[in-house]
Amino acid sequence: MQKILDYIALVDEALKKNTSKKDPKELYEPIAYTLNLGGKRIRPALLLLANNLFGGKDEVALSAALAIEVFHNFTLVHDDIMDEAPLRRGSQSVYKKWSTNVAILSGDVMLIQSIQLLSKGNTTSLSEVLDVFNTTAVQVCEGQQFDMNFESSTTVSIDDYLKMIELKTAVLLGCSLKIGALLGKANQTNANHIYEFGKNLGIAFQLMDDVLDLYGDPKKVGKRVGGDVISNKKTYLLLKAQEIASGKIKKDLDFCLSSVVLDDASKVEKVKAIFNELNIKQLAIDEMNLFYNTAISHLDSIDAPAEKKQVFERFSKSLMNREN
Amino acid sequence: MQKILDYIALVDEALKKNTSKKDPKELYEPIAYTLNLGGKRIRPALLLLANNLFGGKDEVALSAALAIEVFHNFTLVHDDIMDEAPLRRGSQSVYKKWSTNVAILSGDVMLIQSIQLLSKGNTTSLSEVLDVFNTTAVQVCEGQQFDMNFESSTTVSIDDYLKMIELKTAVLLGCSLKIGALLGKANQTNANHIYEFGKNLGIAFQLMDDVLDLYGDPKKVGKRVGGDVISNKKTYLLLKAQEIASGKIKKDLDFCLSSVVLDDASKVEKVKAIFNELNIKQLAIDEMNLFYNTAISHLDSIDAPAEKKQVFERFSKSLMNREN
Repeated sequence: MQKILDYIALVDEALKKNTSKKDPKELYEPIAYTLNLGGKRIRPALLLLANNLFGGKDEVALSAALAIEVFHNFTLVHDDIMDEAPLRRGSQSVYKKWSTNVAILSGDVMLIQSIQLLSKGNTTSLSEVLDVFNTTAVQVCEGQQFDMNFESSTTVSIDDYLKMIELKTAVLLGCSLKIGALLGKANQTNANHIYEFGKNLGIAFQLMDDVLDLYGDPKKVGKRVGGDVISNKKTYLLLKAQEIASGKIKKDLDFCLSSVVLDDASKVEKVKAIFNELNIKQLAIDEMNLFYNTAISHLDSIDAPAEKKQVFERFSKSLMNREN
Repeated sequence: MQKILDYIALVDEALKKNTSKKDPKELYEPIAYTLNLGGKRIRPALLLLANNLFGGKDEVALSAALAIEVFHNFTLVHDDIMDEAPLRRGSQSVYKKWSTNVAILSGDVMLIQSIQLLSKGNTTSLSEVLDVFNTTAVQVCEGQQFDMNFESSTTVSIDDYLKMIELKTAVLLGCSLKIGALLGKANQTNANHIYEFGKNLGIAFQLMDDVLDLYGDPKKVGKRVGGDVISNKKTYLLLKAQEIASGKIKKDLDFCLSSVVLDDASKVEKVKAIFNELNIKQLAIDEMNLFYNTAISHLDSIDAPAEKKQVFERFSKSLMNREN
């Protein structure tokens, strides 16, 4: 796992150098601000790790790794406007700190910068890399739109939900790994396996997120337990419960979702009791394990030294056993 | 000029084919709507014309031409949010017809689609083409930010203004022509000359726009005469007047700009009288001609058959002698 930490440090260092402040400052200050808010840098680290797995050089892939991180942060800047999220990583979101217009335009520049970083010094596989990146970028936007649509929809199925988290979250993990592999001159089969590894791991990760919201240790999750329940968010847990509940349980659940008299704590308690009765936590973990196992089987299929693949498996396990 | 009309028709036809409607419809309907609102298609037509000038084939450059048009329309979709513009080409703007969120996200997808179109089937000069495109795309965003900053600034100089219109409007004309030239395998010198031709023509075009707002034939301009004056917009005319006015004229101008009692028609009449006294229209036309002549001198320097260059000169003249 040391390798991942090294790559995270490398990315952090490069991002700091990269955020030169230019005119107009209304455009470039929010970009520097966003890129310095922190973040786990998991995507660029995975890109570098995949590149290394196939014998690629760090310095060849670093620019693409930064591209992925800048792109990811672009989506956060625009999503925060759309979701009216005042906070990002404990600080004010860009639209809140400056304005919606500033967030729109500096986000646009970040999207363009990500393409610039991707194109930098990379000519042999540029067309292939751009192809994966652009397809993914459009999918991430589609995922965000589906997510917004779900808020007002009453007919979201489990399949709709899984498709949404695949688009909004998981494909970018797959894309990061595949670009790293392509830059490391992996063949198409290996590149596709590592993409599927990342995508399925991403879905499993998001399902874990849903579980942790209600069943995580509040001290470790770092946010209010049951936030999704309080806001009636259509997570895997709620959608699964709605799918299988019937009779009195269904009535109780509907009451909790529509009641205006229940205070937040009681709502969380009641919904959790219903979920427990329906065994929802275990069903979610079963679903998560399906995606996790698919991810690992793709990892196993990659034609690369077993000892170099170990770090991916260890990293995957740590994501699944995390407490926050 | 027939050639340009043919290219405009070609672009229109291709755009119609290209706007397939997919899911989620909240994302793809606004894109199809925007691309079918019309527009002069000048940028893609110029790209194809530049490509043809150097012997390039239309089918090789068509995708890049569409990329430029999609990019241009992306900027309009996002600008209309920022400028709170309810109308675009006589129809509702996207943010007004749908919502700000829809306009943000469908605009984002258009920006990504423009990169997709640019990368399509183009591998030999992809890196070079992307380089010009990305640099320009960032500049266009910078221009929009400067334009917004100018609204609340009291210290905008003529140089600031010329730089702003260069970034916001002119560089995309230069970029369109240069990409066409590169795809037609023009050498770097010729590609740079045609870029400078387009950029300078673009600045001249924008100055003409400023003049037409107040001095155009209302029947032909198709919008209210003096709209810029009414809104105190910092155009070349106003900035030049503020630069050279002194004494009583300066006082009168300041009164017109800050008065809350003047009705719109009187304000336009009074400001026009001040401009006439200061000979502003002629000064603007002189400035415009400087840029126009620079454009033409770059056109002259391009090493290409004179008879093939004629259409660019004729087109430039038509832009300068236009009445709308």
